[in-house]
Amino acid sequence: MSDAAVRQNAHPRKPATNTRTPVGGAPTSPHSAVEAHEARIDVDAVTDLLLGTWRETRREAREMIKDPAFWRIEGQPMPEHRERVLGQLRLLVENNGSRRAFPTEYGGLDDNGANLAGFMELVLADPSLQIKSGVQWGLFGSAIYQLGTKKHHDAWLRDVIELDLPGAFAMTETGHGSDVAAIGTTATYDPETEEFVIHTPFRGAWKDYLGNAALHGRAATVFAQLITNGVNYGVHCFFVPLRDDDGAFLPGVGGEDDGVKGGLNGIDNGRLHFDHVRIPRFNLLNRYGDVASDGTYSSEIPSPGRRFFTMLGALVQGRVSLDGAATTGTALALHIAVTYANQRRQFDSGAGSDEVVLLDYGKHQRRLLPRLAQNYAQFFSNDELLRTFDGVFSGRQDTPAERENLETLAAALKPLSTWNALETIQEAREACGGSGFLAENRLVGLHQDLDVYVTFEGDNNILLQLVGKRLLADFAKQFRGADAAKLASFAARQTVGKVFHGAGLRQFGQSVADLGSTARSVELGLRAEQQHELLAGRVEQMISDIAGRLRPAAKASPAEAAELFNANQAELIEAARAHGELLQWEAFSDGIAGVDDEGTAQVLTWLRDLFGLHLIEKHLAWYLINGRLSSQRAAAVSKYIDRLCLRLRPHAQDLVDAYGFAPEHVRAPIASGAEHERQAEARAYYADLAASGEAPASEKSLKKK
Amino acid sequence: MSDAAVRQNAHPRKPATNTRTPVGGAPTSPHSAVEAHEARIDVDAVTDLLLGTWRETRREAREMIKDPAFWRIEGQPMPEHRERVLGQLRLLVENNGSRRAFPTEYGGLDDNGANLAGFMELVLADPSLQIKSGVQWGLFGSAIYQLGTKKHHDAWLRDVIELDLPGAFAMTETGHGSDVAAIGTTATYDPETEEFVIHTPFRGAWKDYLGNAALHGRAATVFAQLITNGVNYGVHCFFVPLRDDDGAFLPGVGGEDDGVKGGLNGIDNGRLHFDHVRIPRFNLLNRYGDVASDGTYSSEIPSPGRRFFTMLGALVQGRVSLDGAATTGTALALHIAVTYANQRRQFDSGAGSDEVVLLDYGKHQRRLLPRLAQNYAQFFSNDELLRTFDGVFSGRQDTPAERENLETLAAALKPLSTWNALETIQEAREACGGSGFLAENRLVGLHQDLDVYVTFEGDNNILLQLVGKRLLADFAKQFRGADAAKLASFAARQTVGKVFHGAGLRQFGQSVADLGSTARSVELGLRAEQQHELLAGRVEQMISDIAGRLRPAAKASPAEAAELFNANQAELIEAARAHGELLQWEAFSDGIAGVDDEGTAQVLTWLRDLFGLHLIEKHLAWYLINGRLSSQRAAAVSKYIDRLCLRLRPHAQDLVDAYGFAPEHVRAPIASGAEHERQAEARAYYADLAASGEAPASEKSLKKK
Repeated sequence: MSDAAVRQNAHPRKPATNTRTPVGGAPTSPHSAVEAHEARIDVDAVTDLLLGTWRETRREAREMIKDPAFWRIEGQPMPEHRERVLGQLRLLVENNGSRRAFPTEYGGLDDNGANLAGFMELVLADPSLQIKSGVQWGLFGSAIYQLGTKKHHDAWLRDVIELDLPGAFAMTETGHGSDVAAIGTTATYDPETEEFVIHTPFRGAWKDYLGNAALHGRAATVFAQLITNGVNYGVHCFFVPLRDDDGAFLPGVGGEDDGVKGGLNGIDNGRLHFDHVRIPRFNLLNRYGDVASDGTYSSEIPSPGRRFFTMLGALVQGRVSLDGAATTGTALALHIAVTYANQRRQFDSGAGSDEVVLLDYGKHQRRLLPRLAQNYAQFFSNDELLRTFDGVFSGRQDTPAERENLETLAAALKPLSTWNALETIQEAREACGGSGFLAENRLVGLHQDLDVYVTFEGDNNILLQLVGKRLLADFAKQFRGADAAKLASFAARQTVGKVFHGAGLRQFGQSVADLGSTARSVELGLRAEQQHELLAGRVEQMISDIAGRLRPAAKASPAEAAELFNANQAELIEAARAHGELLQWEAFSDGIAGVDDEGTAQVLTWLRDLFGLHLIEKHLAWYLINGRLSSQRAAAVSKYIDRLCLRLRPHAQDLVDAYGFAPEHVRAPIASGAEHERQAEARAYYADLAASGEAPASEKSLKKK
Repeated sequence: MSDAAVRQNAHPRKPATNTRTPVGGAPTSPHSAVEAHEARIDVDAVTDLLLGTWRETRREAREMIKDPAFWRIEGQPMPEHRERVLGQLRLLVENNGSRRAFPTEYGGLDDNGANLAGFMELVLADPSLQIKSGVQWGLFGSAIYQLGTKKHHDAWLRDVIELDLPGAFAMTETGHGSDVAAIGTTATYDPETEEFVIHTPFRGAWKDYLGNAALHGRAATVFAQLITNGVNYGVHCFFVPLRDDDGAFLPGVGGEDDGVKGGLNGIDNGRLHFDHVRIPRFNLLNRYGDVASDGTYSSEIPSPGRRFFTMLGALVQGRVSLDGAATTGTALALHIAVTYANQRRQFDSGAGSDEVVLLDYGKHQRRLLPRLAQNYAQFFSNDELLRTFDGVFSGRQDTPAERENLETLAAALKPLSTWNALETIQEAREACGGSGFLAENRLVGLHQDLDVYVTFEGDNNILLQLVGKRLLADFAKQFRGADAAKLASFAARQTVGKVFHGAGLRQFGQSVADLGSTARSVELGLRAEQQHELLAGRVEQMISDIAGRLRPAAKASPAEAAELFNANQAELIEAARAHGELLQWEAFSDGIAGVDDEGTAQVLTWLRDLFGLHLIEKHLAWYLINGRLSSQRAAAVSKYIDRLCLRLRPHAQDLVDAYGFAPEHVRAPIASGAEHERQAEARAYYADLAASGEAPASEKSLKKK
């Protein structure tokens, strides 16, 4: 994209649509709030709201990546792209982008929430940059910091931060991704030499898909089964040097390049294997489990299961940041598609001489506006997740319960936002037609890069299953030792749609105090309270139904129990998804509860309503089957949505401008105002031609004569 | 992929899953029909069934593309990829792949159905090859053949077929894609020199996204507004030379490279513009409209609208072939994902010592098997489309009504199959986890290349809208001049779920004579008749409802009418989609009606039922709201689907083997048997370790002591 094109970008703050010539009779609602003579949102204030708690850090990051050196070059061949992204990591170091998560004594800034907030924005420059820096500092560095102890920090953290020690995070194996506990790599302690022997016993135990493994990693944090004195103490993490100063593998270490991927080709993913590689005992990252020189194992967490999950939980930040990056990437796609849809014209309406702007089509509104509402919800829920994360990792609220909540929240939100990203980016690309398929317009690249977000750092379905199990466990807790009266009382409550306060995540009725200014809701039959009741009631009943169906498992054989669980797996995942949707809806409602500006509050309430109704429409069959909506009310949901789309249509440009992207972040020529110029030129041409009296007559008009 | 890997490919005919060690108690159903002790499908016979009417041509094409010269090289930079695909086109010529659609007098083979059938298979080699050859012979060559007359055929067809004259098809402009009638390029006749002047009056009128335009095209078939004697006779097609023998643009011609795209980067898409470029009168492709030397226009089709649609209709083959290619591409993705899911293991079930094969998970079955059923339906409906196409283009059944039916059928099926392709390929990629993201496993490349299929050759939503309008028109025809009694009688019929015989496509009750062996249906409450009634009744009622809501438009102002239509646009598109789904279901039912082999008929009937119920589940809310299913029956639909998935699970490998792909077509290492070998190696390792007595004890087992 040329500099000129960047300068031509008319947004934010001056929607080109304001300059449109109104066409009498075209099936158009107003294109802007000004035309609609309505209160409009305070765009800058909404930007603040969306950027959330760490808005200043985000703005810093966005300012930094205005430098074209950070931008993805479309179509760049893989080898050059990899080198470019490595260079961008060095630039990040220079700009202090690598320091925020780490302690000040090693050159860090000790600010966890800000770290992730800034990191998420890198997706706007190049998702490869976001993920490669995530590998270096969020995974490799974080493993050393979170799973290691002071001696390890002293030894390596400064070099990690400065990128003098690039590293890989070697957890996943070819044979085991989601089931980390079952990995095959072994780390066997040899008391004679006080060394661990890192070994790959078979092909499936090769470490795989690791960023920094193919080329740049000098070391890796390797997860392996810790075996000492003939006992396997489960998965632990070890610091293992990989390459010498010339980049050649050290003795016993080998590997392969993963080659071209569906996206993120700025990252050198690869495979690693180890043939009895010896590392000093020192290199066991021993915060949660240690081995004495004689081989005696010790841990302050006696339960092997809890120890394992504590170690994994220390690395939750990957999921938190993916939730945010997916949300930001989705916003970029919506900004591009809505801006284009506000300028692009196609087909006359049959009612006037002019062609219709895409966003005036009922179908086009339906394609984009509910997704815009969803994306707004994600901004609010991600900020909540980020605050929870910061509370735990700053130590301010670091309790086991809060850690567990954080992990569940991340496991519920990351799947939803990453799937939404793919669906929304795809819809945006299709809504831009052929121009959406050109790499220069960014949408295809975003889809390709974000594709893997739905299966890495925890496969989305597996994460939701974890959330579902947590919901089931919380549900069961309520009835531990319950007598018949209590169960009956619960059954009664169920029918009125109250929510069991499950999953320890949020005391629903409490924190959603206001439910987002009911008074401002469109005059629907489904105001905020009803939306909440429907969304929350669904989670409750699904979990309660599944729990009921699983009850026989308690007295069944393990095989029968497994079969019973398997028969309910798909629905449990659906219940977890419903839970995540509820959390997003609540976060959205909380987020707008404090808004004072009347226009902003009004429009955001409509948008929240659109999100709520969109969710209810998606699950309409469930509400009908379960008697929670009558056929009549259910039939009205889609009509409400159509009305909300019409209401929001004039505010669409304001709402995507409120993402606060500068031209250097957008970079897509179709969202630069160029389309508007082309339309204007074409219309001027036809107007001049008509005025000249030299326009050819149309055959049709002749035939009429 | 190495030759060795290709050789290792165990499929089709020897599912690796047959070698599995059964695990007592794991939540597994049998992995193969052999294990299930059930009748199984006759795989070869089903391959014949799927390959359809032109199965021999398809087999020839598949044999040809076993040559690695035709294969896509993952990650190949764009310039090399473009050259490679051009070379593949030359190979196609050598293999007679370019001749089938053209008359024998120019070296053709005069076999339209076979031409498209063979062409569709190229997607297995490289979708860029499929589309670039489609540009050359299906669009550029076809425009000359279908829109030109003998003098044009004599002049150019032989060179087109031999690729001595590579060309572009210059219809779409930057400013107008779907609305072809509104393109800006002009062709103004100059009687003094007997030339047309081809001109691009403004930037939006540049031709855009044209394959062969950036590099290889020597000429183009350019669509432009034909203006003569001061009258615009609408869009016609002209043969315009572009480049000289050295590849330089001729005077007045200019252009740009479209650059990198989301996929299909083996094709040199580009833009063209014309500055008063003069071409001889000869170059007007004058089959449907001609200009005499004095500038007098003549046409055998007096209506400008009908003439325009006749010209566009002559090019329908693009949509027909995309429907088939999308179906074949989807099949490849399912073959890869199902084969992998039958070998890959992850997590133990808690019930046995072994890990569970992915396809044994309830959720995994739900993700893949309904899509397999859908893909089967598409094979059958595509063959029907192909037969209709061949009937028209061979001249055997070339009536205006049949042409219209063909166009509507293509417009209904192409959107469904191309969207299904993207969704299924994406689900397949996610179902393969990280390995699905590696380019070598093909899924990401397929998604990238097929992405644009949903918006080119007619944007999917626009095509469905056309179908919807056709359904509305047919509906209206039934009541033209109807009196109150007739309307009342229709209303009565509606409630019993009978179908109006709309869209002239298929006399539903007639051609679906058997409804696919009801006796073989699973004992459901929703047998074939009910499925058909529900699917057909939905189309009927949606159209009838929309027609009712649009009725006031007849008496409204154009603006009000446009607004009313716009308010119903999204639902009209939904109705058209429902119509397409019905056609697919009927084609599937027809396709299996003649199957004699008991096992094949049984399994395919289950699969057809799964397809039908999957559609009904998707639209369950509609059935409930409209009183067509009770809550109780609706709740049962999902359970039926779960049961069908369990029934079909042992047949899944047979069903994807029946696609008939050879290792040279699949090429994905994860579907080669490599995963099975890795699993076997790992299990052997642990078995040997246990047998050796040297296996470390697990910490957990120690704690129990």
